[in-house]
Amino acid sequence: MRTYFECIPCFIRQVLDAVRMTSDDQQVQLQVLRKALRLASEADLTQSPPAMAQQIHRYIRELTADPDPYIEVKDKFNKIALQMYPDLRTRIEKSIDPLETAVRLAIAGNINDFGVTSNIEESHVPKTVAESLEAPLDLNALDDFRKAVTKAKNILYLGDNAGEIVFDRLLVEQLPYQKIAFVVKNGPVINDATIDDALITGMTDVVEVIDNGSDAPGTILDSCSEQFRDRFDNTELIIAKGQGNYETLSDVDKDVFFLLRAKCPVAARHIGCEIGDMVLSRNTIKTGAKKP
Amino acid sequence: MRTYFECIPCFIRQVLDAVRMTSDDQQVQLQVLRKALRLASEADLTQSPPAMAQQIHRYIRELTADPDPYIEVKDKFNKIALQMYPDLRTRIEKSIDPLETAVRLAIAGNINDFGVTSNIEESHVPKTVAESLEAPLDLNALDDFRKAVTKAKNILYLGDNAGEIVFDRLLVEQLPYQKIAFVVKNGPVINDATIDDALITGMTDVVEVIDNGSDAPGTILDSCSEQFRDRFDNTELIIAKGQGNYETLSDVDKDVFFLLRAKCPVAARHIGCEIGDMVLSRNTIKTGAKKP
Repeated sequence: MRTYFECIPCFIRQVLDAVRMTSDDQQVQLQVLRKALRLASEADLTQSPPAMAQQIHRYIRELTADPDPYIEVKDKFNKIALQMYPDLRTRIEKSIDPLETAVRLAIAGNINDFGVTSNIEESHVPKTVAESLEAPLDLNALDDFRKAVTKAKNILYLGDNAGEIVFDRLLVEQLPYQKIAFVVKNGPVINDATIDDALITGMTDVVEVIDNGSDAPGTILDSCSEQFRDRFDNTELIIAKGQGNYETLSDVDKDVFFLLRAKCPVAARHIGCEIGDMVLSRNTIKTGAKKP
Repeated sequence: MRTYFECIPCFIRQVLDAVRMTSDDQQVQLQVLRKALRLASEADLTQSPPAMAQQIHRYIRELTADPDPYIEVKDKFNKIALQMYPDLRTRIEKSIDPLETAVRLAIAGNINDFGVTSNIEESHVPKTVAESLEAPLDLNALDDFRKAVTKAKNILYLGDNAGEIVFDRLLVEQLPYQKIAFVVKNGPVINDATIDDALITGMTDVVEVIDNGSDAPGTILDSCSEQFRDRFDNTELIIAKGQGNYETLSDVDKDVFFLLRAKCPVAARHIGCEIGDMVLSRNTIKTGAKKP
Protein backbone atom coordinates (compact mmCIF):
# COMPACT_ATOMS: atom_id res chain seq x y z
CA MET A 1 0.00 0.00 0.00
CA ARG A 2 1.42 3.36 -0.99
CA THR A 3 1.43 6.40 1.28
CA TYR A 4 -1.74 8.41 0.70
CA PHE A 5 -1.92 12.17 1.22
CA GLU A 6 -4.06 11.60 4.34
CA CYS A 7 -1.20 9.55 5.82
CA ILE A 8 1.00 12.67 6.01
CA PRO A 9 -0.81 14.73 8.69
CA CYS A 10 -1.49 11.48 10.55
CA PHE A 11 2.22 10.60 10.43
CA ILE A 12 3.13 14.02 11.86
CA ARG A 13 0.59 13.54 14.68
CA GLN A 14 1.93 10.04 15.40
CA VAL A 15 5.49 11.36 15.54
CA LEU A 16 4.42 14.04 18.03
CA ASP A 17 2.69 11.39 20.17
CA ALA A 18 5.73 9.14 19.93
CA VAL A 19 8.34 11.73 20.86
CA ARG A 20 6.23 12.95 23.77
CA MET A 21 6.12 9.39 25.07
CA THR A 22 9.87 9.05 24.75
CA SER A 23 11.18 12.44 25.88
CA ASP A 24 10.01 15.29 28.13
CA ASP A 25 12.57 17.64 26.57
CA GLN A 26 10.69 20.19 24.43
CA GLN A 27 13.81 20.88 22.38
CA VAL A 28 14.11 17.19 21.53
CA GLN A 29 10.38 17.10 20.72
CA LEU A 30 10.77 20.09 18.40
CA GLN A 31 13.84 18.64 16.68
CA VAL A 32 12.02 15.37 15.99
CA LEU A 33 8.93 17.20 14.79
CA ARG A 34 11.02 19.30 12.38
CA LYS A 35 12.86 16.19 11.15
CA ALA A 36 9.54 14.41 10.53
CA LEU A 37 8.27 17.41 8.56
CA ARG A 38 11.44 17.45 6.42
CA LEU A 39 11.25 13.69 5.86
CA ALA A 40 7.60 13.93 4.87
CA SER A 41 8.27 16.91 2.60
CA GLU A 42 10.72 14.77 0.60
CA ALA A 43 9.03 11.38 1.01
CA ASP A 44 8.60 8.94 -1.87
CA LEU A 45 4.86 8.35 -1.57
CA THR A 46 5.03 5.20 -3.66
CA GLN A 47 6.58 3.64 -0.56
CA SER A 48 4.38 2.32 2.22
CA PRO A 49 3.76 4.41 5.38
CA PRO A 50 6.08 2.29 7.58
CA ALA A 51 9.06 3.47 5.48
CA MET A 52 8.72 7.00 6.93
CA ALA A 53 8.02 5.60 10.39
CA GLN A 54 11.19 3.49 10.26
CA GLN A 55 13.30 6.57 9.54
CA ILE A 56 11.77 8.83 12.18
CA HIS A 57 11.94 6.18 14.90
CA ARG A 58 15.63 5.65 14.11
CA TYR A 59 16.08 9.40 14.52
CA ILE A 60 14.18 9.41 17.84
CA ARG A 61 16.37 6.61 19.18
CA GLU A 62 19.54 8.43 18.06
CA LEU A 63 18.50 11.83 19.37
CA THR A 64 17.30 10.58 22.74
CA ALA A 65 20.27 8.18 22.95
CA ASP A 66 17.68 5.64 24.04
CA PRO A 67 17.97 2.45 21.99
CA ASP A 68 14.56 1.17 23.13
CA PRO A 69 12.22 3.98 24.22
CA TYR A 70 9.18 1.69 24.39
CA ILE A 71 10.75 -0.98 26.60
CA GLU A 72 8.49 -0.24 29.58
CA VAL A 73 5.38 -0.23 27.43
CA LYS A 74 6.43 -3.53 25.88
CA ASP A 75 7.15 -5.10 29.29
CA LYS A 76 3.82 -3.89 30.63
CA PHE A 77 1.77 -5.33 27.79
CA ASN A 78 3.74 -8.59 27.76
CA LYS A 79 2.91 -8.98 31.46
CA ILE A 80 -0.77 -8.13 31.00
CA ALA A 81 -1.08 -10.61 28.16
CA LEU A 82 0.87 -13.33 30.00
CA GLN A 83 -1.51 -13.00 32.97
CA MET A 84 -4.41 -13.56 30.60
CA TYR A 85 -2.73 -16.47 28.82
CA PRO A 86 -3.88 -19.44 30.99
CA ASP A 87 -7.53 -18.37 30.94
CA LEU A 88 -7.48 -17.66 27.20
CA ARG A 89 -5.84 -21.00 26.47
CA THR A 90 -8.59 -22.76 28.44
CA ARG A 91 -11.24 -20.81 26.56
CA ILE A 92 -9.72 -21.88 23.25
CA GLU A 93 -9.48 -25.52 24.25
CA LYS A 94 -13.06 -25.62 25.52
CA SER A 95 -14.54 -23.79 22.53
CA ILE A 96 -16.46 -25.53 19.77
CA ASP A 97 -13.93 -24.40 17.18
CA PRO A 98 -10.56 -23.82 18.85
CA LEU A 99 -8.95 -22.52 15.65
CA GLU A 100 -11.66 -19.89 15.17
CA THR A 101 -11.37 -18.80 18.79
CA ALA A 102 -7.58 -18.59 18.50
CA VAL A 103 -7.81 -16.55 15.27
CA ARG A 104 -10.26 -14.18 16.95
CA LEU A 105 -7.98 -13.76 19.94
CA ALA A 106 -4.92 -13.22 17.74
CA ILE A 107 -6.78 -10.41 15.99
CA ALA A 108 -7.95 -9.04 19.35
CA GLY A 109 -4.31 -8.87 20.45
CA ASN A 110 -3.68 -6.43 17.62
CA ILE A 111 -5.43 -3.66 19.58
CA ASN A 112 -2.12 -2.89 21.23
CA ASP A 113 -0.57 -0.67 18.56
CA PHE A 114 1.38 2.38 19.63
CA GLY A 115 2.27 3.18 16.04
CA VAL A 116 -1.27 4.39 15.50
CA THR A 117 -2.28 5.72 18.88
CA SER A 118 -0.63 6.10 22.23
CA ASN A 119 -3.95 6.01 24.05
CA ILE A 120 -4.04 2.33 24.83
CA GLU A 121 -5.33 1.72 28.30
CA GLU A 122 -4.64 -1.51 30.10
CA SER A 123 -8.37 -1.75 30.84
CA HIS A 124 -9.18 -1.90 27.12
CA VAL A 125 -7.58 -5.31 26.70
CA PRO A 126 -10.20 -7.57 28.41
CA LYS A 127 -13.01 -5.60 26.73
CA THR A 128 -11.39 -6.06 23.32
CA VAL A 129 -10.93 -9.76 23.97
CA ALA A 130 -14.62 -10.18 24.88
CA GLU A 131 -15.74 -8.20 21.83
CA SER A 132 -13.48 -10.15 19.49
CA LEU A 133 -15.24 -13.41 20.36
CA GLU A 134 -18.57 -11.99 19.16
CA ALA A 135 -17.57 -9.55 16.40
CA PRO A 136 -18.18 -10.39 12.73
CA LEU A 137 -15.41 -12.43 11.10
CA ASP A 138 -15.20 -13.63 7.51
CA LEU A 139 -15.95 -17.35 7.99
CA ASN A 140 -15.17 -18.15 4.35
CA ALA A 141 -11.73 -16.68 4.86
CA LEU A 142 -11.44 -18.72 8.05
CA ASP A 143 -12.26 -21.91 6.17
CA ASP A 144 -9.72 -20.94 3.53
CA PHE A 145 -7.15 -20.23 6.26
CA ARG A 146 -7.79 -23.63 7.87
CA LYS A 147 -7.17 -25.44 4.58
CA ALA A 148 -4.14 -23.33 3.65
CA VAL A 149 -2.30 -23.89 6.93
CA THR A 150 -2.97 -27.62 6.69
CA LYS A 151 -1.76 -27.82 3.09
CA ALA A 152 1.28 -25.52 3.23
CA LYS A 153 4.61 -27.29 3.67
CA ASN A 154 6.07 -24.33 5.52
CA ILE A 155 4.74 -21.12 7.08
CA LEU A 156 6.19 -17.81 8.29
CA TYR A 157 4.16 -16.05 10.96
CA LEU A 158 5.15 -12.36 10.89
CA GLY A 159 4.59 -10.92 14.36
CA ASP A 160 3.63 -7.37 15.15
CA ASN A 161 3.75 -5.99 18.68
CA ALA A 162 4.90 -6.96 22.14
CA GLY A 163 1.95 -8.06 24.31
CA GLU A 164 0.17 -9.10 21.13
CA ILE A 165 2.83 -11.80 20.74
CA VAL A 166 1.17 -13.75 23.58
CA PHE A 167 -2.04 -13.81 21.54
CA ASP A 168 0.01 -14.93 18.55
CA ARG A 169 1.39 -17.76 20.67
CA LEU A 170 -2.18 -18.88 21.43
CA LEU A 171 -2.87 -19.07 17.70
CA VAL A 172 0.43 -20.72 16.82
CA GLU A 173 -0.34 -23.44 19.37
CA GLN A 174 -3.53 -24.27 17.43
CA LEU A 175 -1.67 -24.43 14.13
CA PRO A 176 0.65 -27.17 12.80
CA TYR A 177 3.49 -25.41 14.57
CA GLN A 178 6.21 -27.84 13.51
CA LYS A 179 6.26 -26.15 10.12
CA ILE A 180 5.97 -22.58 11.40
CA ALA A 181 8.68 -20.02 12.10
CA PHE A 182 7.69 -16.88 13.99
CA VAL A 183 9.33 -13.65 12.82
CA VAL A 184 10.32 -10.70 15.00
CA LYS A 185 12.05 -7.42 14.21
CA ASN A 186 15.83 -7.28 14.32
CA GLY A 187 15.84 -4.34 16.73
CA PRO A 188 13.46 -2.11 18.65
CA VAL A 189 11.03 0.06 16.73
CA ILE A 190 8.00 1.46 18.53
CA ASN A 191 6.52 -1.46 20.51
CA ASP A 192 7.13 -4.08 17.85
CA ALA A 193 8.12 -7.49 19.16
CA THR A 194 11.82 -8.40 19.10
CA ILE A 195 13.59 -11.60 20.12
CA ASP A 196 13.47 -10.43 23.75
CA ASP A 197 9.67 -10.42 23.66
CA ALA A 198 9.63 -13.86 22.05
CA LEU A 199 11.83 -15.17 24.88
CA ILE A 200 9.88 -13.50 27.71
CA THR A 201 6.51 -14.69 26.41
CA GLY A 202 7.59 -18.27 25.75
CA MET A 203 7.16 -18.06 21.99
CA THR A 204 10.65 -19.55 21.63
CA ASP A 205 9.48 -22.63 23.55
CA VAL A 206 6.76 -23.29 20.97
CA VAL A 207 8.28 -22.56 17.56
CA GLU A 208 11.45 -21.50 15.84
CA VAL A 209 11.80 -17.71 16.14
CA ILE A 210 13.83 -15.75 13.60
CA ASP A 211 14.38 -12.05 13.05
CA ASN A 212 13.84 -10.28 9.75
CA GLY A 213 17.01 -8.17 9.92
CA SER A 214 15.04 -4.93 9.89
CA ASP A 215 13.86 -2.18 12.22
CA ALA A 216 10.85 -1.15 10.12
CA PRO A 217 7.43 -1.31 11.80
CA GLY A 218 6.18 -3.73 9.16
CA THR A 219 7.94 -5.98 6.65
CA ILE A 220 9.74 -3.85 4.07
CA LEU A 221 11.50 -6.64 2.18
CA ASP A 222 14.23 -4.32 0.83
CA SER A 223 15.04 -3.41 4.42
CA CYS A 224 15.20 -7.06 5.59
CA SER A 225 18.32 -9.24 5.64
CA GLU A 226 19.16 -11.34 2.60
CA GLN A 227 18.84 -14.39 4.84
CA PHE A 228 15.27 -13.42 5.72
CA ARG A 229 14.35 -12.61 2.13
CA ASP A 230 15.57 -16.07 1.05
CA ARG A 231 13.48 -17.66 3.76
CA PHE A 232 10.47 -15.55 2.77
CA ASP A 233 10.86 -16.52 -0.91
CA ASN A 234 11.10 -20.21 -0.05
CA THR A 235 8.10 -20.24 2.26
CA GLU A 236 4.75 -21.30 0.88
CA LEU A 237 2.41 -19.43 3.20
CA ILE A 238 2.72 -16.18 5.15
CA ILE A 239 0.60 -15.20 8.14
CA ALA A 240 1.04 -11.47 8.65
CA LYS A 241 -0.17 -9.71 11.79
CA GLY A 242 -1.14 -6.07 12.05
CA GLN A 243 -1.57 -3.02 9.89
CA GLY A 244 2.16 -2.39 9.44
CA ASN A 245 2.57 -5.80 7.81
CA TYR A 246 -0.54 -5.20 5.70
CA GLU A 247 0.75 -1.82 4.51
CA THR A 248 4.14 -3.23 3.56
CA LEU A 249 3.04 -6.57 2.03
CA SER A 250 -0.36 -5.89 0.45
CA ASP A 251 1.26 -5.46 -2.98
CA VAL A 252 3.74 -8.36 -2.71
CA ASP A 253 3.07 -11.35 -4.96
CA LYS A 254 2.88 -13.98 -2.26
CA ASP A 255 0.25 -16.10 -0.53
CA VAL A 256 -0.40 -14.05 2.61
CA PHE A 257 -3.17 -14.14 5.20
CA PHE A 258 -3.47 -10.78 6.94
CA LEU A 259 -4.83 -10.78 10.49
CA LEU A 260 -5.46 -7.36 11.96
CA ARG A 261 -7.81 -4.79 13.32
CA ALA A 262 -8.20 -1.89 10.90
CA LYS A 263 -7.00 1.23 12.69
CA CYS A 264 -7.22 4.11 10.23
CA PRO A 265 -9.57 5.22 7.46
CA VAL A 266 -6.92 4.87 4.74
CA ALA A 267 -6.04 1.25 5.52
CA ALA A 268 -9.71 0.38 6.10
CA ARG A 269 -10.61 1.79 2.66
CA HIS A 270 -7.70 -0.10 1.07
CA ILE A 271 -8.79 -3.35 2.72
CA GLY A 272 -12.45 -2.67 2.00
CA CYS A 273 -13.66 -2.64 5.61
CA GLU A 274 -14.56 -0.24 8.41
CA ILE A 275 -12.25 1.10 11.13
CA GLY A 276 -12.19 -1.33 14.05
CA ASP A 277 -13.22 -4.34 11.94
CA MET A 278 -11.59 -7.69 12.62
CA VAL A 279 -9.82 -8.55 9.39
CA LEU A 280 -8.83 -12.01 8.19
CA SER A 281 -8.02 -11.53 4.52
CA ARG A 282 -5.99 -13.42 1.94
CA ASN A 283 -3.75 -11.46 -0.39
CA THR A 284 -5.57 -11.10 -3.68
CA ILE A 285 -2.64 -10.00 -5.82
CA LYS A 286 -2.11 -13.40 -7.42
CA THR A 287 -5.74 -13.66 -8.46
CA GLY A 288 -5.34 -10.39 -10.35
CA ALA A 289 -7.82 -8.46 -8.19
CA LYS A 290 -7.04 -4.75 -8.16
CA LYS A 291 -6.55 -2.77 -4.98
CA PRO A 292 -8.40 0.57 -4.89
CA MET B 1 -0.88 33.00 20.95
CA ARG B 2 2.16 31.12 19.78
CA THR B 3 2.07 28.05 17.56
CA TYR B 4 1.92 24.95 19.74
CA PHE B 5 3.31 21.58 18.66
CA GLU B 6 -0.25 20.26 18.27
CA CYS B 7 -0.92 23.03 15.74
CA ILE B 8 1.57 21.47 13.31
CA PRO B 9 -0.21 18.20 12.35
CA CYS B 10 -3.50 20.15 12.40
CA PHE B 11 -2.01 22.75 10.04
CA ILE B 12 -0.89 20.01 7.63
CA ARG B 13 -4.38 18.47 7.71
CA GLN B 14 -5.98 21.89 7.11
CA VAL B 15 -3.69 22.50 4.15
CA LEU B 16 -4.66 19.14 2.64
CA ASP B 17 -8.36 19.99 3.10
CA ALA B 18 -7.81 23.43 1.60
CA VAL B 19 -5.91 22.34 -1.48
CA ARG B 20 -8.43 19.59 -2.16
CA MET B 21 -11.17 22.19 -2.09
CA THR B 22 -9.28 24.42 -4.49
CA SER B 23 -7.76 21.95 -6.99
CA ASP B 24 -8.51 18.47 -8.28
CA ASP B 25 -4.99 18.13 -9.66
CA GLN B 26 -3.12 15.61 -7.51
CA GLN B 27 0.24 17.05 -8.57
CA VAL B 28 -0.85 20.48 -7.34
CA GLN B 29 -2.14 18.92 -4.12
CA LEU B 30 1.19 17.16 -3.59
CA GLN B 31 3.22 20.30 -4.32
CA VAL B 32 1.19 22.28 -1.79
CA LEU B 33 1.45 19.52 0.80
CA ARG B 34 5.25 19.37 0.38
CA LYS B 35 5.48 23.17 0.60
CA ALA B 36 3.41 23.17 3.81
CA LEU B 37 5.68 20.51 5.31
CA ARG B 38 8.79 22.54 4.42
CA LEU B 39 7.24 25.73 5.82
CA ALA B 40 6.27 23.96 9.03
CA SER B 41 9.70 22.34 9.34
CA GLU B 42 11.28 25.82 9.40
CA ALA B 43 8.48 27.71 11.15
CA ASP B 44 9.10 30.23 13.92
CA LEU B 45 6.76 28.80 16.53
CA THR B 46 6.77 32.02 18.52
CA GLN B 47 4.55 33.35 15.74
CA SER B 48 0.82 32.70 15.81
CA PRO B 49 -0.70 29.88 13.69
CA PRO B 50 -2.19 32.28 11.09
CA ALA B 51 1.36 33.27 10.03
CA MET B 52 1.91 29.81 8.50
CA ALA B 53 -1.61 29.79 7.06
CA GLN B 54 -1.01 33.16 5.38
CA GLN B 55 2.08 31.80 3.61
CA ILE B 56 0.55 28.53 2.44
CA HIS B 57 -2.62 30.17 1.15
CA ARG B 58 -0.52 32.64 -0.85
CA TYR B 59 1.27 29.63 -2.33
CA ILE B 60 -2.03 27.88 -3.14
CA ARG B 61 -3.30 30.99 -4.94
CA GLU B 62 -0.05 31.29 -6.90
CA LEU B 63 0.20 27.63 -7.83
CA THR B 64 -3.44 27.26 -8.86
CA ALA B 65 -3.30 30.68 -10.59
CA ASP B 66 -6.62 31.28 -8.84
CA PRO B 67 -6.60 34.59 -6.97
CA ASP B 68 -9.72 33.70 -4.96
CA PRO B 69 -10.26 29.92 -4.65
CA TYR B 70 -13.02 30.30 -2.05
CA ILE B 71 -15.14 32.78 -3.98
CA GLU B 72 -18.01 30.32 -4.50
CA VAL B 73 -18.01 29.31 -0.85
CA LYS B 74 -18.03 32.95 0.19
CA ASP B 75 -20.88 33.79 -2.20
CA LYS B 76 -22.87 30.83 -0.98
CA PHE B 77 -22.58 31.71 2.70
CA ASN B 78 -23.20 35.41 2.06
CA LYS B 79 -26.44 34.43 0.33
CA ILE B 80 -27.52 32.02 3.07
CA ALA B 81 -26.86 34.62 5.74
CA LEU B 82 -28.56 37.42 3.77
CA GLN B 83 -31.68 35.25 3.44
CA MET B 84 -31.70 34.87 7.22
CA TYR B 85 -31.02 38.57 7.87
CA PRO B 86 -34.63 39.97 7.94
CA ASP B 87 -35.85 37.29 10.35
CA LEU B 88 -32.81 37.61 12.60
CA ARG B 89 -33.11 41.38 12.69
CA THR B 90 -36.75 41.04 13.78
CA ARG B 91 -35.75 38.55 16.46
CA ILE B 92 -33.15 40.97 17.79
CA GLU B 93 -35.55 43.91 17.82
CA LYS B 94 -38.27 41.92 19.58
CA SER B 95 -35.97 40.37 22.15
CA ILE B 96 -35.80 41.55 25.77
CA ASP B 97 -32.14 42.46 25.40
CA PRO B 98 -31.39 43.25 21.75
CA LEU B 99 -27.65 43.72 22.39
CA GLU B 100 -27.34 40.29 24.04
CA THR B 101 -29.25 38.64 21.19
CA ALA B 102 -27.07 40.41 18.64
CA VAL B 103 -23.87 39.37 20.43
CA ARG B 104 -25.10 35.77 20.53
CA LEU B 105 -25.91 35.81 16.83
CA ALA B 106 -22.57 37.41 15.95
CA ILE B 107 -20.83 34.57 17.78
CA ALA B 108 -23.15 32.03 16.10
CA GLY B 109 -22.05 33.41 12.72
CA ASN B 110 -18.51 32.36 13.55
CA ILE B 111 -19.39 28.72 12.85
CA ASN B 112 -18.56 29.31 9.22
CA ASP B 113 -14.79 28.87 9.33
CA PHE B 114 -13.08 27.04 6.51
CA GLY B 115 -9.67 27.66 8.04
CA VAL B 116 -10.41 25.03 10.66
CA THR B 117 -12.68 22.60 8.86
CA SER B 118 -14.09 22.32 5.38
CA ASN B 119 -17.07 20.31 6.62
CA ILE B 120 -19.52 23.15 7.02
CA GLU B 121 -22.94 22.19 5.81
CA GLU B 122 -25.48 24.79 4.89
CA SER B 123 -27.98 23.00 7.13
CA HIS B 124 -25.80 23.62 10.20
CA VAL B 125 -26.39 27.35 10.14
CA PRO B 126 -30.02 27.54 11.42
CA LYS B 127 -29.22 24.91 14.08
CA THR B 128 -26.21 26.90 15.26
CA VAL B 129 -28.28 30.06 15.37
CA ALA B 130 -30.96 28.38 17.52
CA GLU B 131 -28.35 26.91 19.88
CA SER B 132 -26.52 30.21 20.23
CA LEU B 133 -29.61 31.86 21.69
CA GLU B 134 -29.68 29.32 24.53
CA ALA B 135 -26.01 28.43 25.05
CA PRO B 136 -24.12 29.72 28.09
CA LEU B 137 -22.57 33.18 27.65
CA ASP B 138 -20.51 35.16 30.15
CA LEU B 139 -23.05 37.78 31.23
CA ASN B 140 -20.47 39.70 33.24
CA ALA B 141 -18.40 40.04 30.09
CA LEU B 142 -21.55 41.12 28.25
CA ASP B 143 -22.18 43.84 30.82
CA ASP B 144 -18.57 44.91 30.50
CA PHE B 145 -18.90 44.93 26.71
CA ARG B 146 -22.07 47.08 26.91
CA LYS B 147 -20.30 49.67 29.05
CA ALA B 148 -17.10 49.63 27.00
CA VAL B 149 -18.81 50.22 23.65
CA THR B 150 -20.82 53.08 25.15
CA LYS B 151 -17.76 54.69 26.69
CA ALA B 152 -15.22 54.24 23.88
CA LYS B 153 -14.79 57.24 21.63
CA ASN B 154 -13.92 55.04 18.66
CA ILE B 155 -14.09 51.32 17.85
CA LEU B 156 -12.60 48.99 15.23
CA TYR B 157 -14.64 45.86 14.55
CA LEU B 158 -12.29 43.28 13.00
CA GLY B 159 -14.32 40.98 10.78
CA ASP B 160 -13.61 37.35 10.14
CA ASN B 161 -15.40 35.41 7.41
CA ALA B 162 -17.79 35.96 4.54
CA GLY B 163 -21.32 34.90 5.49
CA GLU B 164 -20.45 35.65 9.10
CA ILE B 165 -20.19 39.32 8.09
CA VAL B 166 -24.01 39.45 7.87
CA PHE B 167 -24.17 38.41 11.53
CA ASP B 168 -21.57 41.08 12.27
CA ARG B 169 -23.80 43.62 10.55
CA LEU B 170 -26.66 42.61 12.88
CA LEU B 171 -24.44 43.34 15.87
CA VAL B 172 -23.00 46.55 14.45
CA GLU B 173 -26.55 47.83 13.98
CA GLN B 174 -27.15 47.42 17.72
CA LEU B 175 -23.95 49.29 18.61
CA PRO B 176 -23.21 53.02 18.45
CA TYR B 177 -22.22 52.51 14.84
CA GLN B 178 -21.31 56.13 14.13
CA LYS B 179 -18.03 55.56 15.95
CA ILE B 180 -17.30 52.12 14.47
CA ALA B 181 -15.21 51.15 11.47
CA PHE B 182 -15.50 47.58 10.20
CA VAL B 183 -12.25 45.97 9.05
CA VAL B 184 -11.86 43.47 6.21
CA LYS B 185 -8.81 41.78 4.71
CA ASN B 186 -6.97 43.49 1.90
CA GLY B 187 -7.20 40.46 -0.36
CA PRO B 188 -8.67 36.96 -0.45
CA VAL B 189 -7.42 34.41 2.05
CA ILE B 190 -9.50 31.29 2.71
CA ASN B 191 -13.09 32.53 3.16
CA ASP B 192 -12.19 35.67 5.08
CA ALA B 193 -14.33 38.70 4.31
CA THR B 194 -12.92 41.29 1.91
CA ILE B 195 -14.36 44.60 0.72
CA ASP B 196 -16.45 42.68 -1.85
CA ASP B 197 -18.26 40.84 0.92
CA ALA B 198 -18.82 44.09 2.82
CA LEU B 199 -20.40 45.58 -0.31
CA ILE B 200 -22.57 42.55 -1.15
CA THR B 201 -23.89 42.19 2.39
CA GLY B 202 -24.65 45.87 2.87
CA MET B 203 -22.08 46.40 5.62
CA THR B 204 -20.83 49.44 3.70
CA ASP B 205 -24.31 51.00 3.99
CA VAL B 206 -24.14 50.82 7.79
CA VAL B 207 -20.58 51.77 8.77
CA GLU B 208 -17.25 52.84 7.37
CA VAL B 209 -15.42 49.78 6.05
CA ILE B 210 -11.63 49.76 5.78
CA ASP B 211 -9.13 47.06 4.89
CA ASN B 212 -6.17 46.10 7.02
CA GLY B 213 -3.68 45.86 4.14
CA SER B 214 -3.01 42.19 4.84
CA ASP B 215 -3.89 38.75 3.50
CA ALA B 216 -3.36 36.91 6.80
CA PRO B 217 -6.33 34.95 8.19
CA GLY B 218 -6.24 36.99 11.39
CA THR B 219 -4.71 40.34 12.30
CA ILE B 220 -0.92 40.07 12.19
CA LEU B 221 -0.07 43.72 12.83
CA ASP B 222 3.37 43.44 11.20
CA SER B 223 1.67 42.24 8.05
CA CYS B 224 -0.91 45.07 8.02
CA SER B 225 -0.50 48.40 6.26
CA GLU B 226 1.05 51.33 8.14
CA GLN B 227 -2.21 53.18 7.61
CA PHE B 228 -4.14 50.40 9.36
CA ARG B 229 -1.62 50.13 12.21
CA ASP B 230 -1.96 53.89 12.83
CA ARG B 231 -5.71 53.53 12.93
CA PHE B 232 -5.44 50.52 15.26
CA ASP B 233 -3.10 52.43 17.60
CA ASN B 234 -5.41 55.40 17.71
CA THR B 235 -8.56 53.39 18.38
CA GLU B 236 -9.75 52.97 21.94
CA LEU B 237 -11.63 49.71 21.67
CA ILE B 238 -11.27 46.66 19.40
CA ILE B 239 -13.96 44.08 18.74
CA ALA B 240 -12.27 41.04 17.21
CA LYS B 241 -14.22 38.22 15.62
CA GLY B 242 -13.09 34.64 15.28
CA GLN B 243 -10.24 32.40 16.30
CA GLY B 244 -7.76 33.83 13.76
CA ASN B 245 -8.09 37.26 15.33
CA TYR B 246 -7.81 35.73 18.80
CA GLU B 247 -4.65 33.83 17.88
CA THR B 248 -3.00 36.91 16.39
CA LEU B 249 -4.10 39.52 18.97
CA SER B 250 -4.32 37.67 22.29
CA ASP B 251 -0.85 38.93 23.27
CA VAL B 252 -1.25 42.50 22.00
CA ASP B 253 -1.46 45.22 24.65
CA LYS B 254 -4.78 46.66 23.62
CA ASP B 255 -8.37 46.75 24.89
CA VAL B 256 -9.91 43.95 22.81
CA PHE B 257 -13.18 42.05 23.13
CA PHE B 258 -12.91 38.67 21.42
CA LEU B 259 -16.12 37.15 20.07
CA LEU B 260 -15.79 33.63 18.74
CA ARG B 261 -16.63 29.99 18.93
CA ALA B 262 -13.67 27.94 20.12
CA LYS B 263 -12.81 25.48 17.36
CA CYS B 264 -9.74 23.56 18.45
CA PRO B 265 -8.36 22.15 21.69
CA VAL B 266 -5.27 24.39 21.65
CA ALA B 267 -7.19 27.67 21.35
CA ALA B 268 -9.84 26.45 23.82
CA ARG B 269 -7.13 25.65 26.38
CA HIS B 270 -5.50 29.04 25.78
CA ILE B 271 -8.83 30.84 26.25
CA GLY B 272 -9.77 28.62 29.19
CA CYS B 273 -12.94 27.14 27.69
CA GLU B 274 -14.20 24.02 25.93
CA ILE B 275 -14.35 23.39 22.18
CA GLY B 276 -17.61 24.76 20.79
CA ASP B 277 -18.10 27.27 23.62
CA MET B 278 -19.44 30.72 22.79
CA VAL B 279 -16.68 33.08 23.85
CA LEU B 280 -17.05 36.76 24.74
CA SER B 281 -13.81 37.63 26.44
CA ARG B 282 -11.89 40.83 27.11
CA ASN B 283 -8.15 40.86 26.58
CA THR B 284 -6.50 40.45 29.98
CA ILE B 285 -2.98 41.49 28.99
CA LYS B 286 -3.25 44.98 30.47
CA THR B 287 -4.41 43.66 33.81
CA GLY B 288 -1.24 41.57 33.96
CA ALA B 289 -3.08 38.22 33.93
CA LYS B 290 -0.91 35.47 32.50
CA LYS B 291 -1.96 33.29 29.60
CA PRO B 292 -1.28 29.58 30.12
